Amino acid sequence: MSNSFPALDTLRTTCINRLETSLDQLLPENTAASRLSQAMRYAALSGGKRIRPLLVYGATTLAGAPLAKADIPATAVELIHAYSLVHDDLPAMDDDDLRRGQPTCHKAFDEATAILAGDTLHTRAFELLACNGEFRADTRIAMIRQLSQASGADGMAAGQMQDMQAHGQQQTVAALEEMHFLKTGRLITVSLQLGYFAAEIDDPALLDALTRFGDAVGLAFQIQDDILDVTMDTEQLGKPSGSDEKHAKSTFPSLLGLDASRERARLLCEQAQEALAGYGERAAPLQQLAQYIIARNH
Amino acid sequence: MSNSFPALDTLRTTCINRLETSLDQLLPENTAASRLSQAMRYAALSGGKRIRPLLVYGATTLAGAPLAKADIPATAVELIHAYSLVHDDLPAMDDDDLRRGQPTCHKAFDEATAILAGDTLHTRAFELLACNGEFRADTRIAMIRQLSQASGADGMAAGQMQDMQAHGQQQTVAALEEMHFLKTGRLITVSLQLGYFAAEIDDPALLDALTRFGDAVGLAFQIQDDILDVTMDTEQLGKPSGSDEKHAKSTFPSLLGLDASRERARLLCEQAQEALAGYGERAAPLQQLAQYIIARNH
Repeated sequence: MSNSFPALDTLRTTCINRLETSLDQLLPENTAASRLSQAMRYAALSGGKRIRPLLVYGATTLAGAPLAKADIPATAVELIHAYSLVHDDLPAMDDDDLRRGQPTCHKAFDEATAILAGDTLHTRAFELLACNGEFRADTRIAMIRQLSQASGADGMAAGQMQDMQAHGQQQTVAALEEMHFLKTGRLITVSLQLGYFAAEIDDPALLDALTRFGDAVGLAFQIQDDILDVTMDTEQLGKPSGSDEKHAKSTFPSLLGLDASRERARLLCEQAQEALAGYGERAAPLQQLAQYIIARNH
Repeated sequence: MSNSFPALDTLRTTCINRLETSLDQLLPENTAASRLSQAMRYAALSGGKRIRPLLVYGATTLAGAPLAKADIPATAVELIHAYSLVHDDLPAMDDDDLRRGQPTCHKAFDEATAILAGDTLHTRAFELLACNGEFRADTRIAMIRQLSQASGADGMAAGQMQDMQAHGQQQTVAALEEMHFLKTGRLITVSLQLGYFAAEIDDPALLDALTRFGDAVGLAFQIQDDILDVTMDTEQLGKPSGSDEKHAKSTFPSLLGLDASRERARLLCEQAQEALAGYGERAAPLQQLAQYIIARNH
């Protein structure tokens, strides 16, 4: 990560380590089916940008609570993200062989194992939130409610369904935005909300600001993903570039052009930063994360 | 159902209707992706014996609470069961075309939709438990914890993984029992536990008795399933008979013979009934459900 984001670099250095320690401890190798455990660990512990956990940690910090409070919600969100990638990569879905420069889960194992690994990562996310004795029961319930609603039939999975149905079809910008809001945006926004819940404070204005920040950042993130898919090669991305064109998907660059897409992402980044403008230095890691999201090249 | 189980018949008449009304209301047709909603409803509302919901209702009744208390936990358990069937039927898993006399979800829709429908039924189960304002937060947490542990990497999904790995292999009876305990037994036992939690009482002896009842009934259920697979034809079963042999699976009849398998199921049924022997008339629906499980012919 670049030197121009010092507060983000600090958050990242501390938190990615916390997250990966947590994933390592909470995805044991010796469950009742060891091949399944290996596939779960393969899917969750193979790197990645860890954007969603960083948003959880950043929001908990902004809400004034210690980072340790964010460990379980950050892990749970990452498990939901990992499950969705394993299932989205399957031959019947996006049929991708490469993820983060490595064979996808069904390539490294097999399809049946990948389906079950996705399923168990999914279950484990809710189990971790339910079992985390550090939070009050009503806090845990709030987290499970928000995460399930963000990821289910009116959230992430609906977005994937809309995405599958849109293959080969020309979409409107509005339909494309709705799809991305569901598929990517809701999990990004819920990451910030879970980070807020982890602080167990009562500050509706902060929750609202984090939600607006998340909604703007989520769409900016997706526009940048579309831009990278047409401007970068496979080695730089760690996954096949040009895959949107291969799947005949509408993208922001294909509908708006590259320059207008970049401008749109820049404006969303500004909106995100305005949402947290009143929070000063404590918001710096999140503010820099918003900037990084559109400055990144992978 | 036979006339020899009057208390069970009464429970069944009332509760299946309650359950299906609940499923119908809680799986709306108009979510953000209507094809996905249709597939979820197809998978959850196509009949079935509804054994797990009946166990929830039976346990809530035995714990002295009104049936209405059991609606959400019964629905949640059935959604987890439905999700597991949709994924288990996929070509990469058991590759079954027929379920309850109807095309399986991926045959009626397509594989991608079936994967996502399973995923969203799964999420919805936890969402319903988290959002159910009728229970205290700690009751909801207890339900989510038990259900996630019963269905995840040390429960149902691990059992399916063991089952896949055992194809074509001769197993020991102990390994077969462990696989079935995980794959089927844990969700059956957790149904009884959720029914107990729904009453929001503090009676550890009852929880223990229900757990022992569930563990015995779960294994009896599976042995009977294996027996039916070799003794019934496809039309009677509503799913392909002889499928265990087709998948070269070890079964209780193949390892023990038919007579010893029947005797084993009968003894387990007796054990189940002993577990609830002290609870008199209020336990009658569950006692008869245990008898029905080994008397059934589909």
